[in-house]
Amino acid sequence: MATFVMQSLGCEVAAINTVHFSNHTGYRQFKGRRIPAAEIKELYDGLRQSHLTDFDVLLSGYSPSAEAVEAVGTVARDLRYRSAVHPGGFFWVLDPVMGDQGRLYVAEDIVPAYRALIREADLILPNQFEAELLSGVSISSLSGVANAIRTLHAVHGTSHVVVTSVRVGAATDANANPSTLTVVGSTKKQDGQARLFKIEVPVLDCYFSGTGDMFAALMVARLREACAQANLLDRPSWMPDDDVEATELPLAKATEKVLSSMQTILEKTWTARDEEMKKFGTSPGASIGGVEGEGEGDTVGEGQRRFLAETKAAEVRVVRNARDLMLPEGRYKAQAMEV
Amino acid sequence: MATFVMQSLGCEVAAINTVHFSNHTGYRQFKGRRIPAAEIKELYDGLRQSHLTDFDVLLSGYSPSAEAVEAVGTVARDLRYRSAVHPGGFFWVLDPVMGDQGRLYVAEDIVPAYRALIREADLILPNQFEAELLSGVSISSLSGVANAIRTLHAVHGTSHVVVTSVRVGAATDANANPSTLTVVGSTKKQDGQARLFKIEVPVLDCYFSGTGDMFAALMVARLREACAQANLLDRPSWMPDDDVEATELPLAKATEKVLSSMQTILEKTWTARDEEMKKFGTSPGASIGGVEGEGEGDTVGEGQRRFLAETKAAEVRVVRNARDLMLPEGRYKAQAMEV
Repeated sequence: MATFVMQSLGCEVAAINTVHFSNHTGYRQFKGRRIPAAEIKELYDGLRQSHLTDFDVLLSGYSPSAEAVEAVGTVARDLRYRSAVHPGGFFWVLDPVMGDQGRLYVAEDIVPAYRALIREADLILPNQFEAELLSGVSISSLSGVANAIRTLHAVHGTSHVVVTSVRVGAATDANANPSTLTVVGSTKKQDGQARLFKIEVPVLDCYFSGTGDMFAALMVARLREACAQANLLDRPSWMPDDDVEATELPLAKATEKVLSSMQTILEKTWTARDEEMKKFGTSPGASIGGVEGEGEGDTVGEGQRRFLAETKAAEVRVVRNARDLMLPEGRYKAQAMEV
Repeated sequence: MATFVMQSLGCEVAAINTVHFSNHTGYRQFKGRRIPAAEIKELYDGLRQSHLTDFDVLLSGYSPSAEAVEAVGTVARDLRYRSAVHPGGFFWVLDPVMGDQGRLYVAEDIVPAYRALIREADLILPNQFEAELLSGVSISSLSGVANAIRTLHAVHGTSHVVVTSVRVGAATDANANPSTLTVVGSTKKQDGQARLFKIEVPVLDCYFSGTGDMFAALMVARLREACAQANLLDRPSWMPDDDVEATELPLAKATEKVLSSMQTILEKTWTARDEEMKKFGTSPGASIGGVEGEGEGDTVGEGQRRFLAETKAAEVRVVRNARDLMLPEGRYKAQAMEV
C-alpha cells in the first residue's frame, strides 16, 4: 500500500519490508515471516555501502518488535546525520503503529520504544489510541485530542502531529457527531505552542485494512509538495513561520488533499464491495462469524467463508483508482480548532 | 520493477518476493536474503487458506535456487488446477532467469529445473542465451533463433515464446546490424508450427538493470489486453486461430507496445544518467573499475565510487515516467520473419 501510493505520486521508493506475509492481518489468519531487526540493519548497511542513502524522506510504519523499532531509529539517526549540512534535507514521518480503539496489537515493549523515538521524528501520525499511549493524556473529547497534541509538542518536541481517526463519544462530548471521524493536526510554533486544525470526514460503515499506510504515504507526498510550494524545504523540519495560521499550514493543506483522495477511493471500494458480496445472497452488513486460527480453507464453515470473501471484497481499490491519488477532488477544508 | 509496472497498468498484484536485497545486483555488492523455497510455499499456502488464489495470471521471474524454481512450479500447477473449469482462466508467463551473454548467473541445477517446467507455461521469455539453454539449439544468427523457437514449440509444447535481446554477430550473419537488438516472438499453430515475427530496436550504450522484469511485466498487461480485444481469454493459453498471421498475433501487438514503452523510458533514463554523471567531470563512457566484494563505502577508491554513482544514475526511471508505460507511442511494428 505505502510503496504503491508513494510511487503513484512520483516518489522513488526503496522499501525495506518489515514483514513478508501472505495477506494482511485483517483476514485473522496469515502465513509468512516477520523480518528480524538484524535484517533491517543489514539492508540499510547494504544501501550505505553503495551510497544509496540520499533519501529526502523516511516513512516508517509497522515494526514487528521493539528491536525493529530501535533499528528504524538507528536508520533514521544515520540519515539525519548524513543530511546535517542540508537543513530540511531529511524529514522523518513516523507512524507509531501500536493499536487501535483501546486495543494494543503489538508487544507491550514497543510502546516505550516509540515513546523514546518520537522526539526525533519530524511528523508523527498516531491514531487516537496511539496518541493516548504516546502522550499519556487520555482522550474522550476533542479538547483531549488538543491536550495530547500540546503534550507531544511541548514534552516530546515533535514539530508536526496529525491524529488520525478521532472518534469521541457523544456521551462525553456534546459536540460529537457519531457519523463522522475527525482528523486533528498541528504544527508547533517556535515557542512550542500548538496551531490546531481539524477536518471531519463521514464514517463509512466498513472495515478497510491499510488505510493507515495509505494516509501516511499520501501525507509524505502531499506535505513535501505543500512545503516545496511554501519554500520551506531548506528549513529544519520544514517549519513555517509563526505567523502562518493553523488552516494555512502546509500540514493542513496536505491533510485536505490526503483525505480527499482517501475518501473517494474508500467510497468506491465500499460500493464495489457491496456489489461483489451480492453473490452471497444476504446483505453485507449481516454478522460474520470469523474463526481464529489457520483452518484449511476447504473445511471451514460458511461463516468463515463469508468473512474471508467480505474481507477480500473490502481490499482498498487503490491500483485501479490511482487517478484519485494523483488528482484529489478538493472535498475538504481544514477548520481552525479552538479548544 | 515488475510489481510497479503491472500496478501502473491496472493489475492488482500479490507479490511473493524471491529475494529481499538492499539493491539490485548490478551494483556488484548487496546485502540481504534469498527467500527459501519453503517460504514461497508457505506464503502460497497462506493465500490458499484465505481463498486468495483467483489469479488470472502468474508472472514468475528470478528464483534463487532449483528448489525455489520447483516451488514456483508447484504454485503454478495448483493455480492451473483451480482454474480447470475455466479454460484460459489461468495464464502463466515464465521468465526463465538464468544468465545472459553466455554467462550463467544462477546455480547449474536451475537449468534442468526450468527445462522440466517450461512445458507447463503459456508464454516463456528467455533471452538469447536462455533460449539456447532451454532448447539445446545454439544461436549465432536469426535462423538459429527461429530454430530454437521451433524446438520450444515442438519439443516442449510451449504456446508462446518471445526471445528478448537477440544480438547476433555480423561475422556469422551478413544481415546482422550491430547497433540494433532484435526481439523475436512466435505463437504456435495447432500443429506446432511457428509463426515468427521480429522487432528491431536501437541498442542504447548503457547497462540498465531490471529491463527483463520490465519487459515481462509490461507483457503480462499488454498480452492480456490484446487477447481480450481478440476475444481469446476463454481459450486455453489464449490461442488465436491458425489463420492469424505472425504480425497480427496478439503476442506481436503486445510486443510492439511493450517495446515502445521500454525504449522511451530507457532513452529518458540514458539522457538523465549522462546529465547526472556530468558532476564527475569525465564522460560517462569512460572505463569504470568495479571492485568485487563488500568494502565499506568510505574507504573504497574513486573508481568504485564512480562505478556505484553510474549504476545509480542508470536506475531505470520508471516511476517518474509511468505515463510512458500507460501510453506507449507506437514506435515499432512487428515484421514477419521468414527463415
